Amino acid sequence: MSLKNRLVGTAKRQMKQTLRPVLQRAMAPKRTEIPASYWGLEQRPGQGLCLEGVPLKALVERWGSPLHVVHMAALRRNVERFLAVPQGRAGGCEVFYSYKTNPIPGVLSVLHGMGVGAEIISAYELWLALKLGVAPERIVYNGPVKSEASVREAISRGIQLLAANHAEELGTFARIAAELGKRPRVALRVSTDSGWAAQFGTPIAGGAALRAYAQARASSHLDVVGLHAHRGATIRTEGEFTGFVEAVLAFTDTLHQELGLDLEVLDLGGSLCTPSVEHIAERDWRLNLTFFRDVPAPDPDGALGISRYVALAVELVESHYARRGRQRPRIFLEPGRAMTGDTQLLLGRVHTLKQGDDRTWAVLDAGVNHAECVRNEYHQLFHVDRPDAPASRVYTVVGPICTPGDTLYHAKRLPELTEGDTLAIMDAGAYFVPFATSFSYPQPAIIALDDGKERLLRRAETFEDQIALDTVTGAAATPSKTEAA
Amino acid sequence: MSLKNRLVGTAKRQMKQTLRPVLQRAMAPKRTEIPASYWGLEQRPGQGLCLEGVPLKALVERWGSPLHVVHMAALRRNVERFLAVPQGRAGGCEVFYSYKTNPIPGVLSVLHGMGVGAEIISAYELWLALKLGVAPERIVYNGPVKSEASVREAISRGIQLLAANHAEELGTFARIAAELGKRPRVALRVSTDSGWAAQFGTPIAGGAALRAYAQARASSHLDVVGLHAHRGATIRTEGEFTGFVEAVLAFTDTLHQELGLDLEVLDLGGSLCTPSVEHIAERDWRLNLTFFRDVPAPDPDGALGISRYVALAVELVESHYARRGRQRPRIFLEPGRAMTGDTQLLLGRVHTLKQGDDRTWAVLDAGVNHAECVRNEYHQLFHVDRPDAPASRVYTVVGPICTPGDTLYHAKRLPELTEGDTLAIMDAGAYFVPFATSFSYPQPAIIALDDGKERLLRRAETFEDQIALDTVTGAAATPSKTEAA
Repeated sequence: MSLKNRLVGTAKRQMKQTLRPVLQRAMAPKRTEIPASYWGLEQRPGQGLCLEGVPLKALVERWGSPLHVVHMAALRRNVERFLAVPQGRAGGCEVFYSYKTNPIPGVLSVLHGMGVGAEIISAYELWLALKLGVAPERIVYNGPVKSEASVREAISRGIQLLAANHAEELGTFARIAAELGKRPRVALRVSTDSGWAAQFGTPIAGGAALRAYAQARASSHLDVVGLHAHRGATIRTEGEFTGFVEAVLAFTDTLHQELGLDLEVLDLGGSLCTPSVEHIAERDWRLNLTFFRDVPAPDPDGALGISRYVALAVELVESHYARRGRQRPRIFLEPGRAMTGDTQLLLGRVHTLKQGDDRTWAVLDAGVNHAECVRNEYHQLFHVDRPDAPASRVYTVVGPICTPGDTLYHAKRLPELTEGDTLAIMDAGAYFVPFATSFSYPQPAIIALDDGKERLLRRAETFEDQIALDTVTGAAATPSKTEAA
Repeated sequence: MSLKNRLVGTAKRQMKQTLRPVLQRAMAPKRTEIPASYWGLEQRPGQGLCLEGVPLKALVERWGSPLHVVHMAALRRNVERFLAVPQGRAGGCEVFYSYKTNPIPGVLSVLHGMGVGAEIISAYELWLALKLGVAPERIVYNGPVKSEASVREAISRGIQLLAANHAEELGTFARIAAELGKRPRVALRVSTDSGWAAQFGTPIAGGAALRAYAQARASSHLDVVGLHAHRGATIRTEGEFTGFVEAVLAFTDTLHQELGLDLEVLDLGGSLCTPSVEHIAERDWRLNLTFFRDVPAPDPDGALGISRYVALAVELVESHYARRGRQRPRIFLEPGRAMTGDTQLLLGRVHTLKQGDDRTWAVLDAGVNHAECVRNEYHQLFHVDRPDAPASRVYTVVGPICTPGDTLYHAKRLPELTEGDTLAIMDAGAYFVPFATSFSYPQPAIIALDDGKERLLRRAETFEDQIALDTVTGAAATPSKTEAA
């Protein structure tokens, strides 16, 4: 590096350091933390943060660190909200959980036990749903890649709904149905103008979706009963959901008018937010990185909650059909993050602290290998041992895998940390487990906390597990002399 | 969406579509493909791309798709280049492979069999190296998170080098060494001004590294023999490497002058590139996304190769020490991507095609779940069946997991694809396997192709494997009636 570059670098660094405290105050966001009580956590003297009376710190002592903890009461609360019939209505929605969001059998079986079905996107997930005893009429099969064998299995079993991701899939469905002499219940995924579409769905705009429906209905092997759509982009407000549902409802009118098709099933997909999680805006991320300005916390109470979302779905669909004097279709919902996001937390420990010029690095035993989502979403972080101590110091919180990309929080004000302290990353119930890797470290155990009792759902990976599928695991010849000397 | 927004959206879309062919020609990058011969692939009539005479297509037919293929001849070639003594020199470098880059026992054992040691960053990797029969004097232990038990094991066994990631680790090393009555061979990781440092190393600038050395040498329990540094940012040119080595060498002079310390080991870390892989620049990525302009291919011949890199390391260190009349230290290298990056390829199949307005979506059975790096690095993609057919059509190549983030190539010109075609993603030997997830799909098998013969290194994950650690795997109660009707 040239002397000039070095001087410029030093000047920049000094300017940032000088500006940081000023900007931190001047540009402080309105909300920087969500209180622990939001998740039912309480602080008990000498025990730190507790859930259902159990100190979180004791959980890692008993089960090891890092550790996933599923809060069963929160899970059941979310299920009940999704399944409740809204006030003043004759019926509510039918709910199919998005398996890919958090595919832990011990979580899925609780959902199924309460009446939630399975929304699957792969041959593996079909196998898992059947293995968990989900009745075929409680399975909806979506996704862009359905293996031939899995479509065959789904049709043979007579699943509730087989949704074509795009029109090109219809030919495969019809061929297999003809071979089996079955007539599967089929939906088509369509895309509206809201949110992203990408590889998903056939667009309503331009008439492609209408043509696909005409094509599907021309096949005597397919029983075209449904329509499937996702907003795509996360739904956080009533307006976002309403706009999307209205676009879908307008298309059901088109189907009625153009093809005389009255749908039995309207599958409105997922996309509902976890209220306490929000994507970090580019600007907030940069301000945090450069000036250590706190990342703004989302306002959970300002977000569209489950009960209102369900009520809104029923209200919009019922009133639309009532105005037209037609019977409203069954409404399917496929929640993922809204169902499980806030029902799980990830505990980890401070392994070591590294003092830097302008901040302290806190190196945890859990990083992006177990918590990839924290890189770009707001996730509340608690100091389990001393949650109420003043957040007096700025930490860069990183994980154990040896890459600068393993950064969970670029600049996070926390109570003073010491080695061995326990931290809790909240809202770990959506996309933490499926995006987990075994990068240099085994994957953590998953336990359930249920009415104050602990139960193992998945044991931690061992070193042996990591090479269990390998053929070469024994001692290799290794010259102990060096080649260079 | 309002009418105004919709009109603006349509106008934008039409402008892009009009501009695309014009800009594709006007802004075409100099190099858009790397020829198949670079990897020793050849096209045979009726067989498509072949490696060592074996049609790649036949590999997925025999072993399943997707499939990782390790090219053993390429691996051995890279090892030989790293271990060769440069012309005119009495000795070369000692080489320790970065386990985290591609931790496949069947690959590691080949490296060890040829004389390469293990560079490890976790308790798991220490366990694996010992399990594979690596002699302790061929093990270097780095990384910011070393468990107490693993440090104890490393010191007991007498490994070659225990490197403190930051000064704070020294206390732990000394304490455990004292308890065991051993004196481990210790290095300190330092950071220069080049590349990134983040949570890694103690900075030379400002004197922190010098103070850490003084602290380390004050402990009678530590045998301070080495210095450890990584450039951080990828090394692609001689200048990048030279600048980094010179900064490190200048600090060895400081250690000599200030502390009278003459190092036995100079560990120059890794960071050397895979010549045929390059990070995609933000601008190129955006142009590809918006205007379908081809992503420029790197020039493999213009990159710093292994042999020249090794020669340069020896040359710079020897001449520096010769000028000072002192004996040069042993030089350690810790290659990762440069060793294995271009020795592996990932085969996948086109599962389905979705026709869009302005491009075709090719949905593969392999996505970011197995090839995360392709999201931001150039990786050559071959049509295995018809590699020489004109690349006449623009595809967005996506994977099977149900998220728009599962996009491997935003706009890639390829020969006309049909369902079932096989594609080869090149240079899959660095960070593909460690960053792999089991997201909705099991992980693929890994085979070796060795002198025309195929050998299984790791079998594909099964559905059963995916829930092997779970406690709940049986049938759950599931009400088959819906709650809403």
